[in-house]
Amino acid sequence: MGKLRARLAELADLQALQMLAGWDQLVMMPPAAASERAHQMGTIARIVHDHATSPEIGEWLAELEDLETSELERDIVRLARRDWERARRVPTDLAAELSKAHSDGQERWQAARAADDYGAFAPALERNIELARAYGRCLDEEGRGIYQSLIDDFDFGLRTEQLRRLFGELGQRLAPLVEEARERSVVAKPAVSADVQRRAVESLMRRVGVDSESWRLDVSTHPFSASTARLDQRMTTRYDDGGVESLLSSLHEFGHALYERQIDPQLDRTNLGTGTSMSIHESQSKLWENHVARHPAFARVLAEDLGAAGYEITAPELHAALVAVEPSLIRVSADPLTYPLHIVLRFELELALIDGDLGVADLPAAWHDGVRRLLGLEVPSDALGCLQDVHWSEGAFGYFPSYAMGCLIAASLWEAMEREIGPRDEQLARGEVEPVKAWLGQNVHRYGRRLDTVGLVERATGAGLEVESFLRYVSPFAAV
Amino acid sequence: MGKLRARLAELADLQALQMLAGWDQLVMMPPAAASERAHQMGTIARIVHDHATSPEIGEWLAELEDLETSELERDIVRLARRDWERARRVPTDLAAELSKAHSDGQERWQAARAADDYGAFAPALERNIELARAYGRCLDEEGRGIYQSLIDDFDFGLRTEQLRRLFGELGQRLAPLVEEARERSVVAKPAVSADVQRRAVESLMRRVGVDSESWRLDVSTHPFSASTARLDQRMTTRYDDGGVESLLSSLHEFGHALYERQIDPQLDRTNLGTGTSMSIHESQSKLWENHVARHPAFARVLAEDLGAAGYEITAPELHAALVAVEPSLIRVSADPLTYPLHIVLRFELELALIDGDLGVADLPAAWHDGVRRLLGLEVPSDALGCLQDVHWSEGAFGYFPSYAMGCLIAASLWEAMEREIGPRDEQLARGEVEPVKAWLGQNVHRYGRRLDTVGLVERATGAGLEVESFLRYVSPFAAV
Repeated sequence: MGKLRARLAELADLQALQMLAGWDQLVMMPPAAASERAHQMGTIARIVHDHATSPEIGEWLAELEDLETSELERDIVRLARRDWERARRVPTDLAAELSKAHSDGQERWQAARAADDYGAFAPALERNIELARAYGRCLDEEGRGIYQSLIDDFDFGLRTEQLRRLFGELGQRLAPLVEEARERSVVAKPAVSADVQRRAVESLMRRVGVDSESWRLDVSTHPFSASTARLDQRMTTRYDDGGVESLLSSLHEFGHALYERQIDPQLDRTNLGTGTSMSIHESQSKLWENHVARHPAFARVLAEDLGAAGYEITAPELHAALVAVEPSLIRVSADPLTYPLHIVLRFELELALIDGDLGVADLPAAWHDGVRRLLGLEVPSDALGCLQDVHWSEGAFGYFPSYAMGCLIAASLWEAMEREIGPRDEQLARGEVEPVKAWLGQNVHRYGRRLDTVGLVERATGAGLEVESFLRYVSPFAAV
Repeated sequence: MGKLRARLAELADLQALQMLAGWDQLVMMPPAAASERAHQMGTIARIVHDHATSPEIGEWLAELEDLETSELERDIVRLARRDWERARRVPTDLAAELSKAHSDGQERWQAARAADDYGAFAPALERNIELARAYGRCLDEEGRGIYQSLIDDFDFGLRTEQLRRLFGELGQRLAPLVEEARERSVVAKPAVSADVQRRAVESLMRRVGVDSESWRLDVSTHPFSASTARLDQRMTTRYDDGGVESLLSSLHEFGHALYERQIDPQLDRTNLGTGTSMSIHESQSKLWENHVARHPAFARVLAEDLGAAGYEITAPELHAALVAVEPSLIRVSADPLTYPLHIVLRFELELALIDGDLGVADLPAAWHDGVRRLLGLEVPSDALGCLQDVHWSEGAFGYFPSYAMGCLIAASLWEAMEREIGPRDEQLARGEVEPVKAWLGQNVHRYGRRLDTVGLVERATGAGLEVESFLRYVSPFAAV
C-alpha cells in the first residue's frame, strides 16, 4: 500500500501545481508569458500522464486487490484501478493529437465567434468530433457507446439513457412554464457600480465564512474556482456587468470551493481527495446560487449588504430581480428556469454530432430549430447561437449535461436537507448558513470521490436522480 | 542533441513551476496551505532531481561531446555536463537529510531569534555545518576545499582565495571611511506614508519600463523577485518602513528582474536561460540601487515622483538621505558604504565554521569581536548579532559573499559603461535609463549562463574583480 499511496500523493501534488499554474494564468500572470506557460503546462501534463499510467501501478494493484484492507484503502485501490486503466487505454499519440486539436480549436473558435463566421470554425469542430470519437472508442471497452465513454470522464456512472429521460422530461415540463413567464412584465434590473458590488460581495463572503487564512477572492474575466489544497480555496468573480451578477456568481463559486474545503482530511493527497464529478460539483455551486442566493428570505441579507455598500434596494425588489424569468439566447446569463433548457439543447446536439446523426454543416440550422422549440426565440446570428460556448472548441463533449444535472441535484439535496433539519427560511433571513454547510459537509462533501454521482445522490436524498424537486423550485418563478 | 534539449526544456519548465509555487507561497497563498505546499514543493524537487541526474543524460553527453556543433550547442553541452555531474555526486539520502535539516533549522532559528536565545539555535547550526561539510566533500573532487565547493553552487569559478584577498582589502580600505563618516552629523530620514510610497514606486517603475504586459509588482514581507519566463518578471516590495526604502528596494528588484528579462531569447527553455551566478545577479540589483537610485542626478527624478505622490522633498535632501552613512548592527538596513563590511564579517565567520577553525559555541563572541573591529559597534544581543540572518539556518553557506561581490561588480560595470557611453548625469537627471538598459543587455544580460562570473566581468569591463571602483563610488559618502 505504501508504494501506491506514495505515487498517488505525488500525483495529487502535481495536480495541485497544475491547478495553481492554471489559476495563475487566468488571474495573475502577465499576458506576454502565455506561450511559455503553455509549454510548462504541457510538460507537467506529460509527467502526470507518465506517472499515472506506469506499469508498476498495475503490479501494486494486483497485489493489493488480494489483501484484506480497511474500507478506505479498498476505495483507494478501486479508484486507482479505474483511473489507471482508463488512462492507459488512450495511446500517447492520440492524447497529443487531442491536446493540439483542442488548442487549435479554441483559437479558431475565438476568431470565428468574433467574426460571426461559423464556416471558419466548422473544420476544427469536425476534427474535434473525429478525435472525440477515436478517444471514446479507446475507452468504450464494454460497447456501451462512444458518448457514454465521454460522459464517464466528467461523471462516471451517469448513463446516457438516464440523461435522455431526465432531459426529455425537463424539456416537456418546462415548456409551459416558459410560456407562462413570457406573459409577465419584464422586471427592472438593479444598476450597481463595480465598487458597491465589490464591497457587498466581500461582506457576503465574510458572512458565509470566507476568511484570509484559507481562501482568496480575486477578479478574472470569467468567474471560476481553483484549489491547490483543502485549505487553499481560490474563487474569482467580476464586477463589470453593472448589475448584481457578482452576488450570484460569488456564491456559485463559493459552493464549488466549499465542496473541496469540506472533503474528509483523511483523503488529502490521495486519489479520493477531490470532488467526485462535474454534476455533483455543479450541484454545490447551484445550491448556493439557486437555493441560498435566490431564496426570498436571504434577499434581506443581500439587500442589507448592498445597502451598507451604498446601493439601496428592498429585499422583495432584489428577490424579484434575482428570479426574473426571461427566455434569452445566451446560456451564461440565463435565468434559473430557462437555464437547463440551454443544456437540453446542447445535450441533444452533441449526442447527435458524436453519434453521426447530425453533420457539422447542419449544426446552425439544428441550433435554430432547438432554440425555437425550447425557448420560443429566433436566433439572429451564430455568434449568439452555436458559437457562443467554448466547450466544443476544446473538445469537451459530455460536459454540458453536468450543468443541468447540477440544477436538478441541487434541488433534490435542498429538499432532503430541509426534510432533515427543517425549513431554512428563518435562519437564512438572519444570514445563518452554518447548518447548511454542516449538512452538506456530512452528506455530500466529506466523501470526496468515494461515492460516484448516483450513489452519492441516493445516499444523501434517499432517492435517485429526478426532475420533480427542481420543478417545484422553479415553478413559482414563472408566475412572479 | 534533440533528446538532450528536450530534457533541458522539460527541466526549465519544471523549474519555472517551482519558481511560481515559491512566489505564490510568499505573495498569494492563504497561509493555512503551508504544509500542503511544502509537500508539493518536495514532490516537484524530487522529480527535477530524478530528471536532472538520470543516466541517459550521460550517454547523450558522451555522444554530443564528440560532435562538431555550433558554439551555442557547445555551451549547452558544457553546462549540461557540469550540472549533471555535480547533481549526481550528491547521494539521494544526503539530499533528503539536507532538505530536512534546512527546514528544521529555519524553524528553530525563527524561535531562537524571537527569544534571543542562541543556545536554542546552536544544535541546528551544528547539524547544518556537519551536513554542509558532507555535501561539500561530495562535490570536492579536485581537493580544492570544502568551502570552495559550497561557493561553486552560487558562483561557479569564484575562488575562496580571491574572496579572501578582495574582502581583506575591502575591510582595510573601508575602515578609515567608516571612521570619517562617524564624525559627521546624522541626516534626518524622510517620513513618507505607505500610500505615497506606493504611488511614487509605481511611477518610478513606469519610468524604467515596467508594464503590465510582462511584469508584476506586488507586496511581500521581504522584497524579492521571481520569474516564470523571460516575459514574466515579478517583483515585490514593501511600504511599511515609513521612509523611502521602497524606492531603493523596487529598483534593486528591478535590477534582478531586468537581468532575467534581457537574456538572449535563443536561450529560452535551455540550461543557459537564467542569470549565471548570485554575484552577477546581485551586481545587477546593486547597480540599480547604488548607481541609479543613489545617483545625485537621479535624485531629481525620485523627488519629482515623491512630489507628485504628495511628499515634497528637494533632490539634494533626498540624495543626502539615500547615501547617509551610519554604521549599524543590521545588514539588511545598512547604508551603501558599511553594507559590504557586514558581508566581510559573515564570510570570515562562515569560512572558519566550515573549516573547523571556529566552533559553534564560539560564534557569538567572534561576531561581537568582528562587529567591533569592522564597524566600531558593540552588539547588545545575539538577536541583533549572529541570529539576524536566515541564511545559515537554511544551510546556505557560501551565499553571503555574493552580496558584497555584487557591490564591487556593480561599481566596475558602471565605470566601464560610463567609459563606453559617457557619463550618465544628464540623462539620469531626466530619468532616461534606456541606454543603461541597452548597455547591460548587450554586455551582461544576454549571455545567460554562457559565461561564468569572472569571465563575464572580464569581458564587460576589460579587467578582473577589484575593489577600486567601489571605493571610488562610496568614498564621497563618508564625507557628506
